[in-house]
Amino acid sequence: MTSSPLLRESHGLRPLPGSAPVEIAESRRYRLKTKFLGRPLDTDQLAHERLGRPTALAVFASDALSSTAYASEEILRTLIPVVGFLAFSFVVPITLAMAGVLVILIFSYRQTIKAYPSAGGAYIVTKDNLGLLPAQVAGVALLTDYILTVAVSVSAGVAALYSAFGALQPYKVPIALSFIAIIAWGNLRGVKESGRLFAIPTYCFLFAMFAMIGFGIYQALTGNLHHAPVPSDAVPIGTETTVGLFLLLHAFASGGAAMTGVEAISNGVPAFKVPEWKNARSTLMVMGACLGTMFIGISWLAMKMQVVPSDNKTVISQIASGVFGTSPAGHAFFLFVQAATMLILVLAANTSFADFPRLASFHADDAFMPKQLTKRGHRLVFSNGIVLLSLAAAGLVVLFQADVTHLIPLYAIGVFTSFTLSQAGMSVRHLKLREPGWRFGLFVNGLGAIVTGVVTVVIAVTKFTHGAWAIMLLVPILVFLLVRLNHQYESEKDELGEGATAAVTEPVLRRHTVLVLLDHLDRSAARAVQYARTLRPDELRAVHIAADPEKARELMEEWQELPLARFPLEVVACPDRRIARAALEVVAEETADGRTEVTVLLPRREYREFWHRFLHDRTSDSIARALSVLPHANVTFVPFHLGRPDVVELPAPVAVPDGDS
Amino acid sequence: MTSSPLLRESHGLRPLPGSAPVEIAESRRYRLKTKFLGRPLDTDQLAHERLGRPTALAVFASDALSSTAYASEEILRTLIPVVGFLAFSFVVPITLAMAGVLVILIFSYRQTIKAYPSAGGAYIVTKDNLGLLPAQVAGVALLTDYILTVAVSVSAGVAALYSAFGALQPYKVPIALSFIAIIAWGNLRGVKESGRLFAIPTYCFLFAMFAMIGFGIYQALTGNLHHAPVPSDAVPIGTETTVGLFLLLHAFASGGAAMTGVEAISNGVPAFKVPEWKNARSTLMVMGACLGTMFIGISWLAMKMQVVPSDNKTVISQIASGVFGTSPAGHAFFLFVQAATMLILVLAANTSFADFPRLASFHADDAFMPKQLTKRGHRLVFSNGIVLLSLAAAGLVVLFQADVTHLIPLYAIGVFTSFTLSQAGMSVRHLKLREPGWRFGLFVNGLGAIVTGVVTVVIAVTKFTHGAWAIMLLVPILVFLLVRLNHQYESEKDELGEGATAAVTEPVLRRHTVLVLLDHLDRSAARAVQYARTLRPDELRAVHIAADPEKARELMEEWQELPLARFPLEVVACPDRRIARAALEVVAEETADGRTEVTVLLPRREYREFWHRFLHDRTSDSIARALSVLPHANVTFVPFHLGRPDVVELPAPVAVPDGDS
Repeated sequence: MTSSPLLRESHGLRPLPGSAPVEIAESRRYRLKTKFLGRPLDTDQLAHERLGRPTALAVFASDALSSTAYASEEILRTLIPVVGFLAFSFVVPITLAMAGVLVILIFSYRQTIKAYPSAGGAYIVTKDNLGLLPAQVAGVALLTDYILTVAVSVSAGVAALYSAFGALQPYKVPIALSFIAIIAWGNLRGVKESGRLFAIPTYCFLFAMFAMIGFGIYQALTGNLHHAPVPSDAVPIGTETTVGLFLLLHAFASGGAAMTGVEAISNGVPAFKVPEWKNARSTLMVMGACLGTMFIGISWLAMKMQVVPSDNKTVISQIASGVFGTSPAGHAFFLFVQAATMLILVLAANTSFADFPRLASFHADDAFMPKQLTKRGHRLVFSNGIVLLSLAAAGLVVLFQADVTHLIPLYAIGVFTSFTLSQAGMSVRHLKLREPGWRFGLFVNGLGAIVTGVVTVVIAVTKFTHGAWAIMLLVPILVFLLVRLNHQYESEKDELGEGATAAVTEPVLRRHTVLVLLDHLDRSAARAVQYARTLRPDELRAVHIAADPEKARELMEEWQELPLARFPLEVVACPDRRIARAALEVVAEETADGRTEVTVLLPRREYREFWHRFLHDRTSDSIARALSVLPHANVTFVPFHLGRPDVVELPAPVAVPDGDS
Repeated sequence: MTSSPLLRESHGLRPLPGSAPVEIAESRRYRLKTKFLGRPLDTDQLAHERLGRPTALAVFASDALSSTAYASEEILRTLIPVVGFLAFSFVVPITLAMAGVLVILIFSYRQTIKAYPSAGGAYIVTKDNLGLLPAQVAGVALLTDYILTVAVSVSAGVAALYSAFGALQPYKVPIALSFIAIIAWGNLRGVKESGRLFAIPTYCFLFAMFAMIGFGIYQALTGNLHHAPVPSDAVPIGTETTVGLFLLLHAFASGGAAMTGVEAISNGVPAFKVPEWKNARSTLMVMGACLGTMFIGISWLAMKMQVVPSDNKTVISQIASGVFGTSPAGHAFFLFVQAATMLILVLAANTSFADFPRLASFHADDAFMPKQLTKRGHRLVFSNGIVLLSLAAAGLVVLFQADVTHLIPLYAIGVFTSFTLSQAGMSVRHLKLREPGWRFGLFVNGLGAIVTGVVTVVIAVTKFTHGAWAIMLLVPILVFLLVRLNHQYESEKDELGEGATAAVTEPVLRRHTVLVLLDHLDRSAARAVQYARTLRPDELRAVHIAADPEKARELMEEWQELPLARFPLEVVACPDRRIARAALEVVAEETADGRTEVTVLLPRREYREFWHRFLHDRTSDSIARALSVLPHANVTFVPFHLGRPDVVELPAPVAVPDGDS
């Protein structure tokens, strides 16, 4: 015999005919949440808007494009303190080398986009071709980089702000934290991935940068481009006259920060209009071209103008004020550059808020991260991932006092690790599938894997002592912990799954004992006694744990007056006043024969106002906690609502013939 | 038919014959507590050691005697900034006036001790004679004063310490906090009220003070007592030449701090050897004599030596160094005075740790404070009261930076309020009972009530702007809150008590429905299903709240395969993923007819390691919380122990004929 399942909708109560409808107020917490985050969204409202190429560029490229705001500066910050103005001879060649890496990456990701049109992130590609463990490495490396992207982008955005308004500099940490809070709030509300609004900062930034570079070239051609004055708080200017290989590699590694975010488009192919992979590919090419051009252009201007980085003025801001001059129009344009830079940087942080929770949910789906990360919140976003990212990034901002230069050495190593693993994964795929054109694909992705692998090693070695060691220590530790977590999940799953179906139809235990734990005789206890008799068990007993002999004696006298048959009261002496422990021992004795199912009834008063409950010690909670160690000890809370009479009038109940009265 | 109660001892499990003994490990929390606080004490170990008069003096008088360490100084601190050296003409008269109050108080309390040999605190006396509400005022006033005693005594103790070792002055707040922590810890462990150890500081202090005063008189007689040098960081020295009445009253009010603790003996009469009241009375006389003599002596020396208070050196320390000189022996004696002062002050704080929790438990017993304050902890002391006192005193120490002078204005007003109420209560008692000698008693207590009432007004008026307003605001607010609390307790008691005995035998409801809430089919769910069948309800149903339609479909398919009759699965669509809310609605619909008792079974996985539980969201907890608003919705947690197989082997259970299989 089988029963067919009943199906029904929740919401909108349909009371049984003849009874009053039931109104249940929403909880305070839920009302607050709705006020703060907006109307809740139903699961079927989860839908992806398809993006045209221009919008897609704005949405996916902000992270990559925005890194030009600090990449050239970081190269100079590596060189100038050692070799002084000699640095300007090397900034453009180093930029060109990094642009070469970019070209290889772009072509590599063209392959990935075609092969994984549904989701081509490093985690998926690595898992698919190299296995779960390498995927954890790729994923964790990328997750740490997403956290750093938020910290670096927000800090750089704040730097753009105080380069224009110096008075704000002392407040950079609180400003950065409020940016993170605002972005987190927006994402918890579920900012749509698309939103044309997001296109504005990206295109403003592109316009500002190309205008600055173009006008700079014009000034240079007309001989009006002058050296920037050395700022008063410039970095120390070195005096060495030879440039060593290690220094060059270190500068190159610092420029690597510009490459973060290149993988964003391959993560988001399904969001493009059909044909998705073709549109994604061409958007990738446009992004690569813009990124490369801007990076080279800014480095070239920095060289021409001999811009020395300082703590109060970003290199970009020095270039902008040099190029546009001090006329009112020039200053207006300078402010526009700063505003656009700040906005795109904050938007870049926003990109991580889309990527991190999704990637974390992949890990969690594969049982390598806590399951809570797979849960969609009030507004259908992965709220737990958003909160986790915000806290981690805020922690970094506080720890590093919103200082981009100190954050940069931690950066880029994660993203290059994931590049390497994902390109290696693609190479393996070509070798396995041998689809048409696999030789070319293998060449491109193989080259990509080798080049990004080499860059990863260069970054690891040259930045090791500057902080990269922390990431190189953290990633393996995290991977170890994730694997440990996975073992735990797997062993739980095995234990819970094994013979579950058979267990459902297991016969019930021989005896059922119901114990009503009583402190004293009041209506709350009476409710529990009434309910206990509903259960019709094999044995039924009231139990009083006697911390106070006087009270116990009173209860015994009262009990003897009651017309209750087959419902004895057991009084357990408890001279050490450890009520929960005594209850545990009583129940343990009952279940010790292995053939008894015990139900422990705990009368529980429910109060109208939350503060009323603090007037009582919640002994019932601590008893329940103590009993939780015992198998076959089932704890039932029997509620009694104080100051809240039953919502509906109770009709005359029917007595059950249990021999009482 | 009635059943006789069973009586038995807990601890030491007696398993049923033929089954294995059950061993249950103690919880980590309990093991930690035992390590920190010592072996737990059984309730019958609660016994008062009887104290002989010398020990009783040491135990009960430390609070009162120790106040001489700062009382004279506080008088000078009030006068000198206004009238400069003219102050020294007034310090002795003011001290004598306060000594007069002391004499009246001592005689008043002689009456109280005789009338209330079991417990003659202000709370009991006021409640007995003036009623519950005035008793709340007396009690709250005294409680705030106990908190201040801890803050003031510990701060003054630290001042004695850094008067000797100036280098410690910057650390006064952390030192004061550690003193409070140590005293709290000692009291949580249950320091015996007596302990001869406690006699040492009191007698050392008495010896040090009388030696200092005696030697000072000798020096004065031999013409060797010189003016103390004015310290570099002395208080500002005023230049006014007339001494106003208000100033004198203010100085008098400052000296009132010396009277705190006089009531201690009357609280502790039962702790004396028989005849209790006689011994208590004579100890009270000795204490009064010592306190009066020392207070007058110190004020006299301060006058003779023209000691100007300062921030770094207490007046006592200046007197001691002046009297004993700078010879090595003199310096050793100076250090002895400081050490004895510090010890008795810390001991005085300890007295409040005995009084506050006891008084708070009186309030709580009368349902004017949270019931938790009546609960005896691990070591039989009122642990919650101790913790409350420590936190409040520590808060004051931090707020006032361990500064005695700023704390003093808050002080004394509480204790004088309670003196007034308790003496007034005694007067009413004499009038009512008219026992032999009632006229003399009425005279003494009436005089006491009038004098202490006047002093209370003087303190309130003269110290109002210095901080007394805070207490005058706080006490009525607290009394209001306590009365509110009492109403809440009373209304709860009425509601719970009304018809309780009748309610116990109420017939059970017509129907019993059991709902098993399932997420998916695993062994934990199987346990819940197995248990559900034990209950033999009128209706039995599995309910799945479907946040994920895919999972719901799988479960439905699995369920249809199961050979379960009369056990349908209901699937409730939940598109907004609010599982707890959907569960609430399902159960509300069931109970809506007012004749159904619903048992909701929640499978609950119990994990071996505490961190394992953080890998899962505790949906069952949030469902239980949501259901707690519904009457007749009884929630049962059915445990399944992961990685912890049943302690005992289950014998083959017996199938119950419920039509299954």
